[in-house]
Amino acid sequence: MTINSPKGFRSSGVAAGIKENGNKDVTLVVNDGPLDVAAGVFTRNKVKAAPVLWSQQVLATGRVKAVVLNSGGANACTGQEGFQDTHATAEHVAATLGIGAIDVAVCSTGLIGARLPMDKLRAGVTAAAARLADTEEAGVDAATAVMTTDSVPKHAESVQDGWALGGFAKGAGMCAPNMATMLAVITTDAVLDRSGLDAALRAAVNVTFNALDVDGGTSTNDTVLLLCSGASGREVPVEEFTDKLTGLCRDLVAQLQADAEGVTKHVTITVRGAVSDAEAATTARTVARDNLCKTAFFGSDPNWGRIAMAVGNAPVGFDPAKLDITINGVVVCAAGAAGEDRSKADLSGRDITVEIDLHAGPGNATVLTTDLSHGYVEENSAYSS
Amino acid sequence: MTINSPKGFRSSGVAAGIKENGNKDVTLVVNDGPLDVAAGVFTRNKVKAAPVLWSQQVLATGRVKAVVLNSGGANACTGQEGFQDTHATAEHVAATLGIGAIDVAVCSTGLIGARLPMDKLRAGVTAAAARLADTEEAGVDAATAVMTTDSVPKHAESVQDGWALGGFAKGAGMCAPNMATMLAVITTDAVLDRSGLDAALRAAVNVTFNALDVDGGTSTNDTVLLLCSGASGREVPVEEFTDKLTGLCRDLVAQLQADAEGVTKHVTITVRGAVSDAEAATTARTVARDNLCKTAFFGSDPNWGRIAMAVGNAPVGFDPAKLDITINGVVVCAAGAAGEDRSKADLSGRDITVEIDLHAGPGNATVLTTDLSHGYVEENSAYSS
Repeated sequence: MTINSPKGFRSSGVAAGIKENGNKDVTLVVNDGPLDVAAGVFTRNKVKAAPVLWSQQVLATGRVKAVVLNSGGANACTGQEGFQDTHATAEHVAATLGIGAIDVAVCSTGLIGARLPMDKLRAGVTAAAARLADTEEAGVDAATAVMTTDSVPKHAESVQDGWALGGFAKGAGMCAPNMATMLAVITTDAVLDRSGLDAALRAAVNVTFNALDVDGGTSTNDTVLLLCSGASGREVPVEEFTDKLTGLCRDLVAQLQADAEGVTKHVTITVRGAVSDAEAATTARTVARDNLCKTAFFGSDPNWGRIAMAVGNAPVGFDPAKLDITINGVVVCAAGAAGEDRSKADLSGRDITVEIDLHAGPGNATVLTTDLSHGYVEENSAYSS
Repeated sequence: MTINSPKGFRSSGVAAGIKENGNKDVTLVVNDGPLDVAAGVFTRNKVKAAPVLWSQQVLATGRVKAVVLNSGGANACTGQEGFQDTHATAEHVAATLGIGAIDVAVCSTGLIGARLPMDKLRAGVTAAAARLADTEEAGVDAATAVMTTDSVPKHAESVQDGWALGGFAKGAGMCAPNMATMLAVITTDAVLDRSGLDAALRAAVNVTFNALDVDGGTSTNDTVLLLCSGASGREVPVEEFTDKLTGLCRDLVAQLQADAEGVTKHVTITVRGAVSDAEAATTARTVARDNLCKTAFFGSDPNWGRIAMAVGNAPVGFDPAKLDITINGVVVCAAGAAGEDRSKADLSGRDITVEIDLHAGPGNATVLTTDLSHGYVEENSAYSS
């Protein structure tokens, strides 16, 4: 069930003292090959963390032999010194493993704006390298050491006939992926070339990680990496691989949604009948980010008027007199006015589905979101994160 | 201190039983002239309430003799029947006052999606007409009967040498004015023509109501009306009038901000150095709407990394390596990295100022917002509004 499920990978996770609470905070993932093909997608936030800038250079080669990840600090907004810290981290991993620094991707997560304690990080890398293993326990350690406000590690695997996918992800807040999401590393022992791997990752991320919007905050550090060892010897067609990869990503995203900060509701917003898929996504995201809609979800209140208000604020084309809104199967708004009695829509359970039909064209999109609860406010106001 | 401060106006506010709690819910404002010039700005939400659609037709004439406002129901998303309800309300006011229905603007506020109880509303209009007076008490009644989640009525006046302005406003949530805001009615006894009145209102609203963003939710009912009786006989130059009107609007907006749902912090976000004023406003609004920034404000936490994250998500041009962020006078982020020790920024008080310099151009803008507190979540999840 871990990143070590495919053949050709070893991992570890250790406590290096970067986190003040003493929890694990340094992860190492190593691809032992024979292949070292890789693909990656990164945050579209203009303010990019140093490890994102570094890893974009690494991925430009299409190859990755190792990934080092730390929690306890995002190394974002840390200037040239922060970039040098990332570079030094990659150099230390490379020297320890006997590879080149350009083969080492780096990911960081935690508070923005603070430098990393490099002595502790270097010692952590050395300790992590000594514990590298291809066991399930080592996979769990790897997924655990990247956690910040996550309450549980998030893993997934997808085992096929003769080849496999594995992966972990972290992220619970500042979570509105844009062509990438929170930190995630995915492994496979299938045999694919660089272009196939890249196409598969972009296609899968677009319909999975990019469809999650917890709080509208695309982070400075979002990264999804896909490492390919080829150790199974199985050549897999790109279509089949993309299908399985999408399923694995969907599994990880469901775990992210379930563990979002303060979450009490899992909300799926589907928009149909938009002028285009892009306008459908914009509409769904506008509803997903509206605090009045999110607090109504928290209150188990089928307050479709707030949804109509949010839809009307989306920069998309539609006729308000044709707007339909269905909540948990009940058509509460039909043709822009009250439909069935909204009290029929029972929102007391954990899952809420909102279906919006704009009747303006063929565009469709689905966005996953959460409610806005006291727990979210508590978690994000009580301390810096 | 009320809408009755200028000469030529009478008002009233009564309880008609539209609100279940028995509070006042119908307001009438009458312009006795000699002039009946008027200007209005309305919500840009595509989903417009019936009274907005009606009042836009009334204001197209440039004249208003009376305004009827109700709380307890927004009459939005109510279809053709809802529009007929608004029309019938205007007809009833007109018959009662002996004027034409096209002289009567209508405003509604409350839950979206429900029809208004027309029998109660008609009886309320009749009762309100019987209580019309030019007293301060009648002005307070008028401002009180439009309240929804507001905790206090909001008035302002601006008395000049020989002429005056008065006004009230309501609004505490679903508050992100876009070319208009919550319900507000402003009166003056100065003498101005239609084009001067219209230009003054648009200029004043643009820098006052439109600079407030409580929760990003532009409502379906936003309306600001400006009624001119000319009863002072004083012709006032448009520039001078605009200046005084802007001051009055600023006063009302400060009261809206102070009474926002769950507010514990008054946050002023100023963006300088943007490519344009529009991009500055977009940047300020992106920060104002970011829940991670808003919860940090609630927690009195000078977490500038969240502000940098939000700025990086705004669709505007800038170089992250030049970004400066100042919180309550402390330059916590300089040239994209940590500046002065952020613990120097004391956010324990009620007022928080955030200054962001993008160093990309001459554009400036200021947006007023609030924090995201447990009170906001409680107020918006515990019952439908």
